[in-house]
Order: sequence, then structure tokens, then C-alpha cells
Amino acid sequence: MQPRNNLDQASVIPDALKDFTIVEEPFYRASGEEVALFEAAYRMRIPVMLKGPTGCGKTRFVEHMAWRLGQPLVTVSCHEDMTAADLVGRFLLDADGTKWHDGPLTMAARLGAICYLDEIVEARQDTTVVIHSLTDDRRILPLEKKNEVVRAHPNFRIVVSYNPGYQSVLKDLKESTKQRFSAIGFDYPDDLAEAEIVAKEAGVDSAIASALVRVAQRSRNLRGHGLDEGASTRMLIHAAMLTRQGIPIAQACRMAIVLPITDDPDVREALTAAVSVCF
Amino acid sequence: MQPRNNLDQASVIPDALKDFTIVEEPFYRASGEEVALFEAAYRMRIPVMLKGPTGCGKTRFVEHMAWRLGQPLVTVSCHEDMTAADLVGRFLLDADGTKWHDGPLTMAARLGAICYLDEIVEARQDTTVVIHSLTDDRRILPLEKKNEVVRAHPNFRIVVSYNPGYQSVLKDLKESTKQRFSAIGFDYPDDLAEAEIVAKEAGVDSAIASALVRVAQRSRNLRGHGLDEGASTRMLIHAAMLTRQGIPIAQACRMAIVLPITDDPDVREALTAAVSVCF
Amino acid sequence: MQPRNNLDQASVIPDALKDFTIVEEPFYRASGEEVALFEAAYRMRIPVMLKGPTGCGKTRFVEHMAWRLGQPLVTVSCHEDMTAADLVGRFLLDADGTKWHDGPLTMAARLGAICYLDEIVEARQDTTVVIHSLTDDRRILPLEKKNEVVRAHPNFRIVVSYNPGYQSVLKDLKESTKQRFSAIGFDYPDDLAEAEIVAKEAGVDSAIASALVRVAQRSRNLRGHGLDEGASTRMLIHAAMLTRQGIPIAQACRMAIVLPITDDPDVREALTAAVSVCF
Amino acid sequence: MQPRNNLDQASVIPDALKDFTIVEEPFYRASGEEVALFEAAYRMRIPVMLKGPTGCGKTRFVEHMAWRLGQPLVTVSCHEDMTAADLVGRFLLDADGTKWHDGPLTMAARLGAICYLDEIVEARQDTTVVIHSLTDDRRILPLEKKNEVVRAHPNFRIVVSYNPGYQSVLKDLKESTKQRFSAIGFDYPDDLAEAEIVAKEAGVDSAIASALVRVAQRSRNLRGHGLDEGASTRMLIHAAMLTRQGIPIAQACRMAIVLPITDDPDVREALTAAVSVCF
Amino acid sequence: MQPRNNLDQASVIPDALKDFTIVEEPFYRASGEEVALFEAAYRMRIPVMLKGPTGCGKTRFVEHMAWRLGQPLVTVSCHEDMTAADLVGRFLLDADGTKWHDGPLTMAARLGAICYLDEIVEARQDTTVVIHSLTDDRRILPLEKKNEVVRAHPNFRIVVSYNPGYQSVLKDLKESTKQRFSAIGFDYPDDLAEAEIVAKEAGVDSAIASALVRVAQRSRNLRGHGLDEGASTRMLIHAAMLTRQGIPIAQACRMAIVLPITDDPDVREALTAAVSVCF
Amino acid sequence: MQPRNNLDQASVIPDALKDFTIVEEPFYRASGEEVALFEAAYRMRIPVMLKGPTGCGKTRFVEHMAWRLGQPLVTVSCHEDMTAADLVGRFLLDADGTKWHDGPLTMAARLGAICYLDEIVEARQDTTVVIHSLTDDRRILPLEKKNEVVRAHPNFRIVVSYNPGYQSVLKDLKESTKQRFSAIGFDYPDDLAEAEIVAKEAGVDSAIASALVRVAQRSRNLRGHGLDEGASTRMLIHAAMLTRQGIPIAQACRMAIVLPITDDPDVREALTAAVSVCF
Repeated sequence: MQPRNNLDQASVIPDALKDFTIVEEPFYRASGEEVALFEAAYRMRIPVMLKGPTGCGKTRFVEHMAWRLGQPLVTVSCHEDMTAADLVGRFLLDADGTKWHDGPLTMAARLGAICYLDEIVEARQDTTVVIHSLTDDRRILPLEKKNEVVRAHPNFRIVVSYNPGYQSVLKDLKESTKQRFSAIGFDYPDDLAEAEIVAKEAGVDSAIASALVRVAQRSRNLRGHGLDEGASTRMLIHAAMLTRQGIPIAQACRMAIVLPITDDPDVREALTAAVSVCF
Repeated sequence: MQPRNNLDQASVIPDALKDFTIVEEPFYRASGEEVALFEAAYRMRIPVMLKGPTGCGKTRFVEHMAWRLGQPLVTVSCHEDMTAADLVGRFLLDADGTKWHDGPLTMAARLGAICYLDEIVEARQDTTVVIHSLTDDRRILPLEKKNEVVRAHPNFRIVVSYNPGYQSVLKDLKESTKQRFSAIGFDYPDDLAEAEIVAKEAGVDSAIASALVRVAQRSRNLRGHGLDEGASTRMLIHAAMLTRQGIPIAQACRMAIVLPITDDPDVREALTAAVSVCF
Repeated sequence: MQPRNNLDQASVIPDALKDFTIVEEPFYRASGEEVALFEAAYRMRIPVMLKGPTGCGKTRFVEHMAWRLGQPLVTVSCHEDMTAADLVGRFLLDADGTKWHDGPLTMAARLGAICYLDEIVEARQDTTVVIHSLTDDRRILPLEKKNEVVRAHPNFRIVVSYNPGYQSVLKDLKESTKQRFSAIGFDYPDDLAEAEIVAKEAGVDSAIASALVRVAQRSRNLRGHGLDEGASTRMLIHAAMLTRQGIPIAQACRMAIVLPITDDPDVREALTAAVSVCF
Repeated sequence: MQPRNNLDQASVIPDALKDFTIVEEPFYRASGEEVALFEAAYRMRIPVMLKGPTGCGKTRFVEHMAWRLGQPLVTVSCHEDMTAADLVGRFLLDADGTKWHDGPLTMAARLGAICYLDEIVEARQDTTVVIHSLTDDRRILPLEKKNEVVRAHPNFRIVVSYNPGYQSVLKDLKESTKQRFSAIGFDYPDDLAEAEIVAKEAGVDSAIASALVRVAQRSRNLRGHGLDEGASTRMLIHAAMLTRQGIPIAQACRMAIVLPITDDPDVREALTAAVSVCF
Repeated sequence: MQPRNNLDQASVIPDALKDFTIVEEPFYRASGEEVALFEAAYRMRIPVMLKGPTGCGKTRFVEHMAWRLGQPLVTVSCHEDMTAADLVGRFLLDADGTKWHDGPLTMAARLGAICYLDEIVEARQDTTVVIHSLTDDRRILPLEKKNEVVRAHPNFRIVVSYNPGYQSVLKDLKESTKQRFSAIGFDYPDDLAEAEIVAKEAGVDSAIASALVRVAQRSRNLRGHGLDEGASTRMLIHAAMLTRQGIPIAQACRMAIVLPITDDPDVREALTAAVSVCF
Repeated sequence: MQPRNNLDQASVIPDALKDFTIVEEPFYRASGEEVALFEAAYRMRIPVMLKGPTGCGKTRFVEHMAWRLGQPLVTVSCHEDMTAADLVGRFLLDADGTKWHDGPLTMAARLGAICYLDEIVEARQDTTVVIHSLTDDRRILPLEKKNEVVRAHPNFRIVVSYNPGYQSVLKDLKESTKQRFSAIGFDYPDDLAEAEIVAKEAGVDSAIASALVRVAQRSRNLRGHGLDEGASTRMLIHAAMLTRQGIPIAQACRMAIVLPITDDPDVREALTAAVSVCF
């Protein structure tokens, strides 16, 4: 499939964004209307929030959409120590004194790219405030330290990811941030779809893939009963890959699923039993 | 309508503020005397606080007034990490050593602009102290690091926004800050006005707009019963825009209103039911 | 009235302090012996603390006294992030390396000015420690980073303001700081005096001014019953000014007094009723 | 035994990594399938987590594997103050201005090395977020401050160690970090193996080595009954080494095992009794 | 009286310490053996701690002793934000790069002065650790950032002050710091001595001075009953000075003693009554 | 006695360590096998922890051993604000840009010295992590900011001191740090030995010295009954020295022991009584 870019001003990607262009199609198996919803929001320039549990494909989806729309993708992994300056930019010292250096958000806004803030809830509420003026119809970013107002490029979009299971009193988005976004919900794919993904990504046959999906489902039933989250699709792919190197399936599951997910002996035993049953 | 500037010393906007001038009239539908109240305070140089819930139009109002009065608008999104230096300015390194660089507050005071501190309650109480000498009849800003006293330009004004729902023991303005401001209260517009805004901003017909307003009202009734805030006008506009891209109305409401506003399954169900009833 | 300076060594104000000289007499209506007490402490070089509630005229008083004594006034608004370096000075980078830059306290001590630390209780207790050696008979300021000892100019004085209502276990002056100051108590002026101030500052007739003072008194009776502080004289002046722009008196009171002072519906109602009664 | 490197693109080790190459074979006595498991994960480029108690040989294992695979090993001891910049790099000042300096993670990713994050749980959760994009199939590291995207060298691998006994509510890996790793479990070696290790590393005969292992086992039984952890293999080696310098065995055990491990008189007595029994 | 310096190596005061030499005899009225005790410790180079309440003359005593011994006095007011670098020194930027700049402790140690750490308990326990190697027989100060070891000049001495009333669980000296000092206890002088001090320092007659001392004693009896500390000698001197400017005695006491010491109406009343009784 | 250095590679002390060489024999009176134990650990390059109460001679012991072994001693007083960079080194600015500057730990490791971390428990657990790779058989120090790996000089050793009485939940070494050290226990010397030390160090006769030791023993019995620690040997030496200056013994004990050790009137009385009894 060819990427198409009939949604926006045709655009020559500027050099500074070449590094951020996704050249090969990232594999993504849609499980609903998410592609159409994203494209609608994209066309109307409505900011999008991708909601769902760990490892269910949110990041892959945004990479796929960036490729599909032919747009550069600037990804920022949010964390608690991220300051507004990390997003917006700062003055750096140079032989001729200080020189302004755009941060990733400013670069995306100025030159026109999708800016993806991964796990936005990890950032301090007050750091996220800097995106506000870019997410309403002003579409501006005041660079206070430079006394400049950047007006966003027509191709600039903002996308964030958000894991509802992480939200807490201490860490949640401000109401005034949430209300700026439209949201698309994600969850683990259904049985067949997940088995297909595991088989394709790890290069194993569908029998092994389906059995691994059954292990995952049992682990997901333990959510709240000793596990914070069940096994992600990524863990199944890891297990499948290990079998391709000659590791027996039970040992591969132990290495890729059981040991990473828990240190509780009872939960480990339950998961190990689940593995035996599935193979 | 032409912007008029018969309130103040006629003024050639200095170059440094050109970026901050609002050229096109921002759409604003007044719902009371707020324009007259703002102009009265403006003429008397009384600082103004805009009070009201998220997304009810405070920022749009101040942009409209800046356009109306023909004055540049310097907007600062306040956040907890904002230091006094972020407002006032700092020394930056240069080929010839350090050089002072005015912050947005100082620039507005020195050259004459409306300085708008958005969500002032997010700033640390002690950062806000720096505005005190600009908000009484002294109208000065001592730049302690420079041992300079800036006397405010006659056209300098200060406006802040404040969401009473956010105030808490930990985060509130100091009494001595509050008492420096006159206040204008804002709330969501009434039914007809809100439908008119949605129709105009999203480009949809009034039937859809009115139905969306009914959804919003039901969500606002859930405030305190599972929701921190109801749907804002902005969310209604998002939903309406998505329908213009062919997204069915129920799905558009889910994407623009239900999913962003809550992760609680019961509240989601209640909101989804409200959507069904309204269409 | 002409300012007089017969108290101290006649002094040519140095250039660096020109900016800090108060040229026009600031209006101040004395309500007791405060002028004589201040002058006595000034002559004996005893540090002075001005104690009283928000907006009752402490800052105006010190400006008036500085004008009256013909002395420059260096004002520092204290806040929690203020470091000792903000008061004392720091090394700044320059084409030839670092160069020491006096902070406001050092400048006042070195060149001879009244240094006014506004709301000193906001500063960290440990920052205030740097004034200790200037407030006893040593009258010195050791600049530790420079290994210099500044001996205070004969005209150097130190004045602080302090709002007893703010004091708490977390934020109070250290005993060893308090004991270095003599204190002058301030409160809101009496009825007639306050009405006279409002009439003069806002340019309204005494009937409106007196009615506004009655509103203020009722609000002050609510202190501790829903209000942290009553309306200050400044708020009355704002209300009076708004009426001069054609805003009806009730609306002016709502904008300048009721809305800024509280978000509690019951207290707002009580204040609104008080306004109706007074006009 | 010769190190072999038939797993990956043959590679000339770049100069910058020469310092990080392990020239002599580190002694490692395998106690299970760990070598095969590691090699399988290595071939499939799956990140590996080494789990186990203090001093059981995790670090030695990764050094052995790096030697075995002929790959450079970049080790980072994690700690709470480690910032993302410590891993990723920063701008440093230079005669010609600032110059970017790769951190250890970036260097390993760019040039191709095994990056070993020792005791990753000590790092702040939010610092560890920077490894996310390197541990999934993107294998990229966005250098936000440089607006560069580093694509990992084919030989880049990531290995972390993790002591489950340390995990707490405050300090644990995020679910979304854990799920990126496969895990290999480590524990103290069995009796014979441990005695062999002690004898070989300290140069003592097997009688002393075996007796020391018996002391260690008794101390490990006290885990949870006064001791946080039992004596590690390393402590046994220390005790054995001291005997080679003529220190009597009881005193050597006291110096190398009893005194370092506890300050509780009862536990000390129990351990001392255990020592007497074993010799 | 002439200062004498027969205790130590005769010493030409180096230029850098000229600023720190006390030229005029500071008035000090001894109340016990403190002068002899200090001189004995001085001769034996034993560090000295001056213990006592606020404003009882500890700082004056050390200034007197420095004058008496003909030694320069480097005073550091300790506070919570004081870092080890503030005491020891730091690298500062210069036209030729960074240059080391001795802090006050290092300067005193290197060149030979009495270093007086005022209110040492205010400093963080861990900052005070840097004095340890100077306070035992090593008499060295390792400058870790410079890899230099400063050996203390024979004339270097260390003196600290300490107010036992301030000590708390959070703020106290470490046992290992306390044990390095000998201590001299201070308290308010007895009636006659205090009256003599007040009369001399304020230039008033002994009747007024004695009456003020009686006021102070009553206030000191309120310690623990509404007051943290009673009136210090310094406050009495302030009150006496104000009377010399024509302020009536009751008003002078109110300004210099009652208002600064308390905001509690009951305690104020009690103190005011005490004033009436004494005059 | 001549220092001997037959334990290690004969070594010319490099210039940078000249400052750290101990030229004169520090007096140390051994009370057990500590010298032999230290030398055994030294020969085998096992890290050593010196455990014991304040002022019992741990620092003197390590200085004595450094002299005895003819090795330079780099001492670091640990404190809570010490960062990893304070130990390891940092880039400093220079006329030609930044230049790396070894910290004390790196200098000792690179050039070959005993590095003594005094009161290691005061440092943050996470700062101490940097010594891990130097305390196992790797004997390396990765300088992450420089991408250099320092291999320790054969003469490098690491010694730490640790006061078990200070350990708390908040401040203790990590298990993985403790297990890297062998330990030597210290306590106050026995009666005769302590009297001998006091007599020798203070230059007094043995009658006074013995009586002071009896005072110390009584104070040590009060440990846990009002005192955190009893009088250290150092305090006895201070008291003895003061008597040599003509201070009466009771006053000398009060100044050197009673006042520094406690502010509790009852404990002071008990100690004063103990003094009377002993003389």
C-alpha cells in the first residue's frame, strides 16, 4: 500500500524533519474504526488522545497513521522531570553567545509535523500547560523566553497517549487539558487478531500463536488479583521469538511472560499452570 | 466591525509587540455586560480578573477585547514551575557577556500591552507577588537583578483568569493578591447562545447544535456526581466538526465528549444514554 | 508641603539610586502618631516593622516617609523563592569574566537608602538571616562570596512589613529576627478618614465614599465568618472609580468587592445584601 | 576458551568502545540454562532483565556474556539522582560554544554495545522511560535536546539487573517498562558450586570453602528473622582470603561476614555460634 | 584598654583580612569567667561554642574577644540554604576560565582568623560536617573540588553560637559535631549589669534603665506562657533610645517591646500592664 | 618507628598526592588486633569498614595505618548533599572550554591512594552506589560523563567509617553496599588505655587523666537515659588541656564535657555530681 497525503497542503518535508519521517509501513491491524476516526480528527485539526492499557498498540497506531498520512512524527516520551523547556526549547551557548534552540514541540509546530506526547500523564500537569494555546483555535505557541509567538504550521497536529489504569489523584490530566482532546479507545485485539499479529511479528505458526494468546488471556483475568496488568501482545511475541531459537515453549513463556510480570510466588505458580494447560 | 482605540493615548505599536497584535476579530458572543465592565476597568487602569469554569470563553474574551481596544496582548500560561524570572526577565549570555532580556511581564509593562496571566492560580503564590507593585497606583516593576525600576507604560494593563473550581487550600491566591483585582464572572452561555456558537464555529446546522447543547447540559448536571466538570462548549464544537467529516453523531459524541471526560464505566454509560436521548 | 531632610547627613543622592527617589508626594492621611514614631526610630537608626492587615496603607506610608525624609526607597517584594543572593547580590558573567553585582539590600546599604522588605514573612526564615548584621549596632553586611564586608552608609535604614494574620507555624519570623525591630501598628482608618481617602483617590463625592465605607465595615465583620479578610480601602477606591465610568453602583461593588473577595455563594449573598442596604 | 562472535554482524569495535571491551574471560560457573537463554534473547534482540538477590553473580554473568559474545559492555550503576541526561547525553561548553556529548546509553546505541543498567530499580521511574523506544521494535532514541533521532546499531542490546527484594511501592519499575523485558532468574549457587567458586576465587582448599558455605546457608536461613539478606558468595570469598593472610578462621568470619551484615547483638551471637559449629 | 596579642605567633594581618579586623573596642560587660575561659580555650586551640538565648550578647562577646586578642573575625550567619560551598569556596568564571575562590571558612583557615559561625544550628547538619577536620587535631580542610588540602594557619580558631531553645528533633547538631566543642554558657545579665548596659548603650539615666529592666524581667517570666522568649537587652536599648527622641516612655515600650514580641491580645495586655507598673 | 611499605608495588607517590601523604606518625594506641586485621584486608585488597561510636578513634586509626603503610590518604567527609559528581569529578570551564576535573575518589583510584569515606551513612544511598564497581573484583570506575573507564591503580584501597548508633530506617547503607566490605569494630579504649591517651595527648599527669576517665564512664552509663552518647575521649583531652591553662578542674569539666553534651538540667546536674565525686 502506498501512503497518501491528500488531506493537507501538499508539503515538501523540510530537512530538519527528514529524520522524523517514517519510510516503511509499520504493520498495524485495525480492530475497529480507529483509522477513520483519526483521519476525521486529523482533517479538522482536532487534537487526539489515544487511551488504552500498556502494550496494546497505541504507539504503533500513531506511527502507522503518520506513515499513512505522509507526515513526519516527532515523538516525546513524557516523564516527571520533563520541563516546559524540554518541550519548547532553550537558549544554548555558542561561540557568538546564546542561540535559541527549538524543542521538539516547537519544531513540530513551526515546521509542520505530528507531535506525539507518549504517556502524557507522566509529565507534570504544569508542564502540559504549554500545549494549551496550540490545542485550541489560536494554534499559537508563545516562546516566553524569546518573546516570540510561533503560529503553528497548517500541518501541525498534536496526539497524546494515556493509560487510564495509571491515573491517580496525584497524576492525572487537568480538566482544562482533557477537554481540549478528542479520544480514541484502544484495548488488546480479539483472539484471532492477536494470534495473527503474534504469528506475523514473531514468524511462528498459528498454533503456537493461538496458544500464547490463551496464556495471555488467563494472565489478563488475574488483573486486580495479584497482577497490575496482564501479559501484553509484545510479551507473546517475545515468547514466540525465543521458541524460534530453540528454547522450549514452557521455558520461553517463563522467560518472556512469567518472570517479568510478577515476583509473587503464588501468581507465578498460577501463570505457570496456565502455560502447562495451554500447550 | 472596526476595532477602535479611543480610550488611551494613541499609540504606535512598537516593533517588539507587533507579534502580539491580534489582526482579525476573534468571534465573541457577549452574554451580559462584560464588555462594558471590562472597558470601564480598562479606562480606570484597574486590574481585571476573569472568573469561570474551564472552556467557557475567558481566553476568547480577552483576545476579543484586545482586538477591540487595538492593544497588543501578551499571554502567559501560568504553571507551577514558573519562576519570577520567567515573568520578569533574566540575564542571558552573549558574545559580549551577559545581557538583560525582558520577560513577558516586563516587556508588556515597558512597551505598553495587555498582559494576560492565564490560570494565575497555577503559579506559585510567591511568583505572583511580582505583579503587586504593577497592580497598585505605583505601577512600577523593580528589576532587582538589574537594580532598575521600570515605570509602566500608560497603555499597560494586567488581566488574569481564575477557575474557582480549582482553588484549594494548597493553591489559592493570597488575600493581598486578590484584593488588587476587580472581577468579571463567566459561565457557560445560555442554551440559545451556546447553540449559536456551536453552529457558527463548527459550521453545522442549528438542529445538531441544539441537540449537542442538550447533551452538554446533562453532563453538567453530573458535576459533583462523578464528573469534575461538564462538557465545555469546545467539546461540542469538536463533536459537531467530526460529523462534518462523516462520523455518525453518536460516535462523534463518544470521541469528542464521553471518552475524554471520564474513565468511569458508570458515568460513561450515563453520558452515552444522554447522547441517545438527545438525537 | 516640601520634603525636608534635616535628619541626617545631607546627602547627594548617588546616580545608582536616582531611580529609587520618590519625586511627588504620595498622599498619606495619618491616623495617629505613626509619622513621629517612624521619625524617632529613623533618627536613632532603629529598624522598623510595619504591622497590619492587607491594603491598609503600610506601603503607602513607607513611600510617604521616604519622600518626607528625602531618601531613596529600595523596595523588595519578598517571596518564598527569594534566596539570600537575591538580596545580597551575585556574580554575573561579563566579557571579562564574572563581575559582582550588588543586590538591592547591598546597594541600599552601600549607597545609603531605605530598604523596604515588603511582606518579609513570605521570605524563608533563613533568607532573612542575612539582614541580622545590618540590624544591630554592627551595621555591616558580609558578602561571603566576595569576602568583602560592606559597612552600611549612615543613611541606610531597614523597614519591613508584616501581616500578623498570615503568620503560622510554618511561616513566621524567627524570634532572633523579631527582636531586632521596633514596630508600628496599622489598621484600617476610621470611618471619616477612610471616606475622605476614597473620595480623594477616586474623585467621587463624599456620599458615595461614605456608603462604600459602610459596605467595607460589614465585610470586615465577616472576617472569620467566611472571609479571611474584609474589603480593603483599595477595593472601595476601585468601586468608586468604576462608578465614574458609568457603571451602576451595585454592579461596581459586585465587580470591585464581592466577586474578588469570595467564591462562596452564601458569603456573596450576604455581601450583596450589605451593598443594597448601604445605597 | 576463545570468545566467539558468530551471532551478529562481524564488527570492528570502534575506538570509542575499546575501553569497554572485556579482554580476559571473567570466571563464571553456570548453574542452569542461563547462557543459552541469554544467547537466544541476544540473537532475537529481546531486552533481558537479570533478577536475583545481592551478590549472587548477575554482574559477573553479564560480563562473562559480553566477553563470550565479543561485544563491548557499557555498564551504568543506576541511582536516584540519575537524570535522563546522564543516560542520553548533554551539551558541554567548548572553546567554540556548546558541543553535544553522548551519554553511555546513546554511545552504546549509536556504536553498538551491550548497555547494562545495574540495579535499574534505583533510577527514578521517569528516567527509565528514555529506554522505551530502544526496547521495542522501533530501536530508536530521540535526542530531544538535539532534535536528532538515533537509530540503534544492529549490535546494540540492553540488559538490566533487578533485585526483587528491594522493590517497594515507592520504588518499582512501571508496568510499561517491565513488559519490555524477558527475564532470567538468579539465585545463590548450590552447595558444591558455591564451594568450588569460593575455593577458586580465594585460592583456599575445598574444606574451608565448604565450611564457609555452611555458614552462609545458616545466615540465609535468618533472612526475615533479623537479617535483610544472608551472606553473599562475595563475603565467603573475603573470609577465605583473610585466612590466607594468617587471620584465624573465626576472626576472618567475624570480619568478613558477621560484623558487616548486622549490628543486632542477638543476630551477631547467632551468627557467631553458626561459625563455631561449622569449623 | 589596649588590645593585646601575646597569645599567639605575632602576626602581620594579611591584606585579605584587613576588612575583618575590629578596630574599636566593642563594649562588653563580663558577667562571669567567660573571658578567662575563652582565652584558655583559645590558647589550647579548642573550638568554642557560645550557648544562650537570643540577644544576650554572644555576638558582642566574640567581637570583643577578637578585638582583645587582636585577631581578625570572619562572621558567617548560618541558614538552611547555606551549602558546603558557601563555607568552603567555589570555582568562579573568569576571562581565563574558572578560578577558585576561597569561602569564608577557607579564608579564615588559610590566612589565620577567628571564624565565627553564628547560629550554627540553622545550617543543615550535613553542611556543618565540613568543619570536622578543622576542629580536631588534624586542623586540615580538604577542598575536594580542588584536590587541595588546606592546613590551618596557627592563628585559625573556630567559634560557634547556639541557642538551646531552638533545638528540635529536626534541627540539632549531630553528636559528632557537638563533641568537638567546649562550651561557654550565656544568659541575660543580672539586674544591675543589664541596667548599666542599657544606660551606657542608649545614653539614658539609670532610673529609666532600671525600670526597663524590670519590664524585661516580667516579660521573661511569660516565657512558655504565651511568649517564646522574653524581651532581650537589645529591645530595652531600643526603648530607651526612643525616649531620647521625645517619645513618651509607655509608647516607646509599646513600639520597641510589646508590638514586636507578640500578636496575642492577652499577652499584649499583660505586657502593657507590666509597663504601667514599672513607670 | 619507620613507616614501611613492603605490602605493595613500591611506588613513587605522584605529585598530585603529595598533599595527601601523612609525614609524621599519628599517635595511635591499639586496643586489639585491628592493625593486623587492617593489614590483612589491605594486602588482599578487601574494602574495610570501621564501625564504632563518635570520637573513639576511627579517623585516627586510618591516618595511622596510612602512615604505617606509607600510602597517601584521601579523606572525604560524607554529607547528605554530596552528589556522585563530588566524588567522581566534573567538567569545569576553562579558557579553552570545559575540562574534566577528577573528584577525590577518581583521583585516589587513578593514582593509587587509600580513599577514606568518613561517616559514609550520611551520604545518600544512591551516591554511594558509585563505589560499587571499585569494591568488587572489577576495580573499575566508569566516568559516565566522560565515557571513560578508570581501572584502579594497584595501590588504591577504599575504607569507610560507620557509626551504628546513627543508622535508621531513613539512613542506612544498602544491603548491596554493606556486603562489599569487611568490618573492624571499634569502641572506647579500656580504663588504663584511655587514661594513657588523655595523659599523652593533653600533657597532664595520670591522676587527672584517670579521674577524667571515671567521669567519662559515668556519662557513658547515661547513654539512653537522657544522653545520646557519652563523653568521648576527645572531650576528656579538652578538659585536661583547659586545666593546663589554669582553669579549675570542675570548671574545665563543665566547659569541655557537661555543657557541650546536654541542655537538659537534670542530666547536667547528674553529670556535675559525677564530676564532684571523681575529684
